[in-house]
Amino acid sequence: MTTFFSSVAKRQQATGSLLCVGLDTDQKRLPAHLQTQPDAIFAFNKAIIDATADQACCFKPQIAYYASQAAEDQLQATIAYLRELQIPVLLDAKRGDIGSTAAHYAREAFERYGADAVTVNPYMGYDSMVPYLEYQNKGVFILCRTSNPGGADIQNLTLSDGRRVFEYVAEEAAGRWNQFGNIGLVTGATQPEELARIRAISGDMPFLVPGVGAQGGDVEALMTAGQGGMMIISSSRAVIYASSDEDFADAARAAATATRQEINRHRNSAR
Amino acid sequence: MTTFFSSVAKRQQATGSLLCVGLDTDQKRLPAHLQTQPDAIFAFNKAIIDATADQACCFKPQIAYYASQAAEDQLQATIAYLRELQIPVLLDAKRGDIGSTAAHYAREAFERYGADAVTVNPYMGYDSMVPYLEYQNKGVFILCRTSNPGGADIQNLTLSDGRRVFEYVAEEAAGRWNQFGNIGLVTGATQPEELARIRAISGDMPFLVPGVGAQGGDVEALMTAGQGGMMIISSSRAVIYASSDEDFADAARAAATATRQEINRHRNSAR
Repeated sequence: MTTFFSSVAKRQQATGSLLCVGLDTDQKRLPAHLQTQPDAIFAFNKAIIDATADQACCFKPQIAYYASQAAEDQLQATIAYLRELQIPVLLDAKRGDIGSTAAHYAREAFERYGADAVTVNPYMGYDSMVPYLEYQNKGVFILCRTSNPGGADIQNLTLSDGRRVFEYVAEEAAGRWNQFGNIGLVTGATQPEELARIRAISGDMPFLVPGVGAQGGDVEALMTAGQGGMMIISSSRAVIYASSDEDFADAARAAATATRQEINRHRNSAR
Repeated sequence: MTTFFSSVAKRQQATGSLLCVGLDTDQKRLPAHLQTQPDAIFAFNKAIIDATADQACCFKPQIAYYASQAAEDQLQATIAYLRELQIPVLLDAKRGDIGSTAAHYAREAFERYGADAVTVNPYMGYDSMVPYLEYQNKGVFILCRTSNPGGADIQNLTLSDGRRVFEYVAEEAAGRWNQFGNIGLVTGATQPEELARIRAISGDMPFLVPGVGAQGGDVEALMTAGQGGMMIISSSRAVIYASSDEDFADAARAAATATRQEINRHRNSAR
């Protein structure tokens, strides 16, 4: 069975890149010459994809951007284009709801848009994630320890048995919850010591590591901390908005290449 | 300032109802005679609204249903219709993401769709909720203790200081997080003793209580447990799918009326 994880592994080999380019595309931030185009968001995404595809193991559209701009059709076109190129697509949606509702969100991600993987929020527990997991060839990244400042609020609470909440999530995700073997974890790049702890708990589970670039994560520290399993290192705004002029695609390519190389310098045995 | 909570309070008075009708509208479950209509989802919603509005203090569309069916335009039309009738609209979205992304989700809910309130997930912490809270006249319902079986997985973990995670969320929501006074809590109807605990922690904070009807919550127990602050009791499938025949609107009205009366029988001093 070809799965999201097997496709990404193959592509990481082929491109020599662990970089995932995040498509957080905001019409207001597009180069002026694109602003007036009817499908400006898709046109921008296509140019970014064409310029960076050989530097990236996958792409990650953030659905909130398309939702706020009523640009569902342009998200659809973007994902269809990536699938045409046979590049794995991770839809960043961070949904979390009761099972009957989660089934609709899973349909949205996997059937309406044809994404190959999705991010989900574990706060509502195991049964809220089952509808995604049942798509066994898809990847399901569970939020474990996130890269934002408030990530610590709940995730770092210490439990009565000494574990922290994110350690509980890592343990369940690597154990009881992973009946189909298609779970990955979202582990922010801004807390390398916690990332190392999650690696120790979860074995060789795939990590999606956002927070490099605009959010300031340290690549060397995170590559050391995360080694021992698949790493997908995500950068969004630092790549796609590297320039706001007509040279935006070249600038994005340069930023993606630099990030890919920076990652590979510290790759060691991590994969 | 007219807020979501002041509008709902006024309407609870006027209608004598704490019931919120959930619009979890699935095209596949519509009466056969509507199935072939072009805007079947909106047509169904409009009929349900017309039949149940005087039995309800607000309506709650669940965005997952519209997303899975590519029915954004029909969600928009539904909310516009409710606004025309000056009925408060709570968009059930349960989003949770880093601040810059959350700002887009807040735009989606409040500006694109014009909802008056939204549900959010606290797992990513305070800064992930700020973009919603900054719309100070809107209501922001934070997931505290949810009604699904897996709700206990993370929410009921016991912390080193003896509190459970949902008690921590209730405390923060009623304290530090509530700088604009526009927070409410989602407290499932299926755990009355926990609902009482959340009421004790959070004072008179508004509760959104889903889980009555299809999910089987006990109305008497929850009305006793929740008294002391605004209660919005949500029922979705048990109302809107009360009949799958041509009499669906009448059946929905009958179900809404019965639920409203059942709530009022046990209302006591609760509001």
